[in-house]
Amino acid sequence: MDYRHVFATNLRRLRTEKGYSQEVLAHEAGVNRTYMSKLEKGGSFVGLEVMVRLAKVLQVEPADFLKVPARRTRKI
Amino acid sequence: MDYRHVFATNLRRLRTEKGYSQEVLAHEAGVNRTYMSKLEKGGSFVGLEVMVRLAKVLQVEPADFLKVPARRTRKI
Repeated sequence: MDYRHVFATNLRRLRTEKGYSQEVLAHEAGVNRTYMSKLEKGGSFVGLEVMVRLAKVLQVEPADFLKVPARRTRKI
Repeated sequence: MDYRHVFATNLRRLRTEKGYSQEVLAHEAGVNRTYMSKLEKGGSFVGLEVMVRLAKVLQVEPADFLKVPARRTRKI
């Protein structure tokens, strides 16, 4: 399991649930716009400091970014 | 809340619960010994890649390192 993609999936889900654009979240969390986009593509292993800043803006726990989404079982 | 200390507390607790010394865990997770000691003192913001390697050796979820321990309420 590639945790860059676990983080990317959770970041995008939480960001959109909270109604933030990538641009606004990047600005408010003090994260470079390009780096934000790279993170959401699973292109980088984020550091805890950035994770905490993003969590603070989105008002979630940093651990929420690392939760593995339950596998969707396909109904046969 | 300083998540370097949240991580440090959880890392030490999980490491000792699983019966690993800092030296053996550092070796098995491919982490520099001095860096491991610094992490357990809350002296650094760990990266997700190292967090995942440590979690794999300890057979825990990376999110377990970021759970905020419940405040111990003192009995009056």
